[in-house]
Amino acid sequence: MGNKKNEIQWKETPKGKIFFQLLLPLLAEFFTTFLHTFWGSMAGIPSTPTHFSALNRTVTTQEWAADYLLSGLVPAMQAGFAVWMLIVGFFKICVVHFNPAISVGFLVSGDLSFKLFLPYVIMQCMGAIFAAFIAQTLRGEMLVPFYISDDANIPAIFFCEVITTGIIIFYTLAMVVDKSYDQATGPLAIGMTVFQGILAGKWIGAGCLNPARWFGPAVMAGGKAWNYHWVLWVADCVGAAIFAVFYMSFFAPADRVWVMKI
Amino acid sequence: MGNKKNEIQWKETPKGKIFFQLLLPLLAEFFTTFLHTFWGSMAGIPSTPTHFSALNRTVTTQEWAADYLLSGLVPAMQAGFAVWMLIVGFFKICVVHFNPAISVGFLVSGDLSFKLFLPYVIMQCMGAIFAAFIAQTLRGEMLVPFYISDDANIPAIFFCEVITTGIIIFYTLAMVVDKSYDQATGPLAIGMTVFQGILAGKWIGAGCLNPARWFGPAVMAGGKAWNYHWVLWVADCVGAAIFAVFYMSFFAPADRVWVMKI
Amino acid sequence: MGNKKNEIQWKETPKGKIFFQLLLPLLAEFFTTFLHTFWGSMAGIPSTPTHFSALNRTVTTQEWAADYLLSGLVPAMQAGFAVWMLIVGFFKICVVHFNPAISVGFLVSGDLSFKLFLPYVIMQCMGAIFAAFIAQTLRGEMLVPFYISDDANIPAIFFCEVITTGIIIFYTLAMVVDKSYDQATGPLAIGMTVFQGILAGKWIGAGCLNPARWFGPAVMAGGKAWNYHWVLWVADCVGAAIFAVFYMSFFAPADRVWVMKI
Amino acid sequence: MGNKKNEIQWKETPKGKIFFQLLLPLLAEFFTTFLHTFWGSMAGIPSTPTHFSALNRTVTTQEWAADYLLSGLVPAMQAGFAVWMLIVGFFKICVVHFNPAISVGFLVSGDLSFKLFLPYVIMQCMGAIFAAFIAQTLRGEMLVPFYISDDANIPAIFFCEVITTGIIIFYTLAMVVDKSYDQATGPLAIGMTVFQGILAGKWIGAGCLNPARWFGPAVMAGGKAWNYHWVLWVADCVGAAIFAVFYMSFFAPADRVWVMKI
Repeated sequence: MGNKKNEIQWKETPKGKIFFQLLLPLLAEFFTTFLHTFWGSMAGIPSTPTHFSALNRTVTTQEWAADYLLSGLVPAMQAGFAVWMLIVGFFKICVVHFNPAISVGFLVSGDLSFKLFLPYVIMQCMGAIFAAFIAQTLRGEMLVPFYISDDANIPAIFFCEVITTGIIIFYTLAMVVDKSYDQATGPLAIGMTVFQGILAGKWIGAGCLNPARWFGPAVMAGGKAWNYHWVLWVADCVGAAIFAVFYMSFFAPADRVWVMKI
Repeated sequence: MGNKKNEIQWKETPKGKIFFQLLLPLLAEFFTTFLHTFWGSMAGIPSTPTHFSALNRTVTTQEWAADYLLSGLVPAMQAGFAVWMLIVGFFKICVVHFNPAISVGFLVSGDLSFKLFLPYVIMQCMGAIFAAFIAQTLRGEMLVPFYISDDANIPAIFFCEVITTGIIIFYTLAMVVDKSYDQATGPLAIGMTVFQGILAGKWIGAGCLNPARWFGPAVMAGGKAWNYHWVLWVADCVGAAIFAVFYMSFFAPADRVWVMKI
Repeated sequence: MGNKKNEIQWKETPKGKIFFQLLLPLLAEFFTTFLHTFWGSMAGIPSTPTHFSALNRTVTTQEWAADYLLSGLVPAMQAGFAVWMLIVGFFKICVVHFNPAISVGFLVSGDLSFKLFLPYVIMQCMGAIFAAFIAQTLRGEMLVPFYISDDANIPAIFFCEVITTGIIIFYTLAMVVDKSYDQATGPLAIGMTVFQGILAGKWIGAGCLNPARWFGPAVMAGGKAWNYHWVLWVADCVGAAIFAVFYMSFFAPADRVWVMKI
Repeated sequence: MGNKKNEIQWKETPKGKIFFQLLLPLLAEFFTTFLHTFWGSMAGIPSTPTHFSALNRTVTTQEWAADYLLSGLVPAMQAGFAVWMLIVGFFKICVVHFNPAISVGFLVSGDLSFKLFLPYVIMQCMGAIFAAFIAQTLRGEMLVPFYISDDANIPAIFFCEVITTGIIIFYTLAMVVDKSYDQATGPLAIGMTVFQGILAGKWIGAGCLNPARWFGPAVMAGGKAWNYHWVLWVADCVGAAIFAVFYMSFFAPADRVWVMKI
């Protein structure tokens, strides 16, 4: 540690720049999306429980509660906490996206360069595939992917994803674009936009919010897992772009807000 | 960004003042109440489960637990987290109320001018109506409004709302009026006054705490949703006024506390 | 507000001293213990569910889960959050105890004068009684007090209360005695010692942790609610004293730790 | 308190050094591991519920939900909160490990000297044994240990423990090695790595994450509690070492990261 000054200067050498500005962020995208998908895939219930619509009888309060706990409250808490944990765990390492929709949002706000967009998304998908592979191997059973049935209301899922994913990006930009942001519970609030988004999407079959995280399980499960999978990618990225434009237009700090530049 | 100084000066131009002091806060009221109502309406269970009083038998522990989870714990966590998230998400944009009772509290403390009160409440109601419309369209079924039955104990609901909504305003003022307030978990504590308020109101049919948030679903549902709806508005605003006076009289910082001015 | 300087000087006048050093803390004790007891009494389930021991058959997983949710998880979250909320809500007003055991702890550490101890405990009990009266009136049914049955294992309850209540005091002193304490989630951790204490006491019938908060419902319910009620007072205050001595002896900051003064 | 200067100098005397650099940290290891094991052992359900695999019929949604609540969600919240609480409660006293795997991680990063490693682990085990003894005495029934059945998938448990325990160490180092770390919710995120780890391990029988915490109940229960117990020790310490090397190699701050030293 005697040569600390040398090492910080190292950051400015050609090799240091490649590591800290390219390799480390890409490795972090891979690792954070791996963790997100690993935690989620390991915690998921082993198989989809009976669908109430097939029961042909009145559903009891107890059945509603059991279903809401397993496919609403617990996944929402698990994923919501995970997003916040990844933000604060890597806070001093680099800005981590672990979600193509977040990358789209940073593209719009100008905080991510175009040439890094594709490498980021590729590392996210690879991390998710690797996590799904490990999770499926450890559990010894097929993972349950984000499955959209043939009779699902696709426009409703699309618009719900646009709004709920868009809000994640709105919150992320509000705390990253505004350099004066100083609320200690801010990163937890970003995570809990996922909590709210999963509860909001539950009853209509939406609540993906991150296409890369669900790309991994889809690759492992195959077949019907690809049913309308593209809808998740399009809806989440379109929602990210719309809400990023909305934030930058009216809510960004005075020196960057677009409405002032007209 | 080279003209940053110019843009900050822009804030002081006539057009800048109109945007930052009037249009932005009103847009934020609309958007935050939209989010609050959207998240809540999307997460709510599709239909009211069987009422235990109609069962004519001993209610089992499992039925109590299922009911408490669906109509107590989950709505309390969902709404409590939402209130905190709206506070910290818009922290650097502007002070957001998204609740007519909060606006009443700020009127009493002198932190909101009288001429802005009505525009604020109108934007809140419009945001809630728009959210309820979107949620009902996406879900394709009638939203469950805040329903007060004909045989409800109206005085009990009224006084419970006065206390629980009043505490929200007490907490809000304690953290906004006192400029030296510095606890990082303070905004989360404001949100959790809603968590406590919903659990407190559950067994007697109270727990509204925000008349604008429930005005939207009432407009969409119509009919019996308007049953005693005015009680929620009166109780919540009266509670806000009482607890704002209570806070300002005894608990405000030494330079503003009313007991010192007599 | 032009006479702000005058008003701060007012704090040093005889009338100002009486208000800020005596009346305000006593009012705060009354109000915080009122809130604690009100929230808890309103959220409690209406009646004790069937005791499993009376069932004379194997208890199913679903029955365990329902019981744990109603009498473990939800009360623990409700009370744990409430304690943290009262600390941060009144952070800039004055140090609030709302628990005789905390007052005992501050007596031991020297942060509460002997002559204020009794007035504090009286205000706590009055706040709890008033809250229990309001809650019972609003709900229109008997509150469920902290009931110790005749066949309870009193020594086990006693020692469990000593440890779990003692830890609350240990945490409180660690954050109040050490003036350099700076963790933003510290007050939430104090609150969650109650969460852990209620879960720890659940299976053996302990988990009171605050005799004043349960004194109110006992006054309203009467009769068997007084069964061994004194055990709660003795155990919680003894636990507070033991853990306060333990903290001050070994864990207090270097300038106050007792082991250094021998 | 007039001799405060003397007492701080006392820290540098031979006796003061022994207390603050050796006895206090060892006492803190004993006490924190005691608390962790005590809270966990007291909160656990009294006996293992029926295993679904023995039911020979389709498991209902309600049974899944009850099982997940009792053996997934509640233990994960209880232990996750406990870890965070121990970190922030002892924040100004000394760095507490209360987990042999954390001690291994600090060995790798160079933040714990080799000669302190064994004393730390011994104090951790003694704290856990004492807590298990107290908990078993208070509850008057056998504690449920971390039981690995003979037909368990040992390699899956091993690798799951390596990853989930490793992530705890990764998070701990990211917040301790990097002296500029400043996120207020960071310690809570460390705790929630345990929340995620328990949910991740639930379905395959993993989720120990701390061999000392489960050593205590194993000593008290004996017999089949020792089944594959060594796997937990080896997997958790190996995972800690691997992820500590991973963190130090690529993610540590520029002046300590190993990749820069090649």
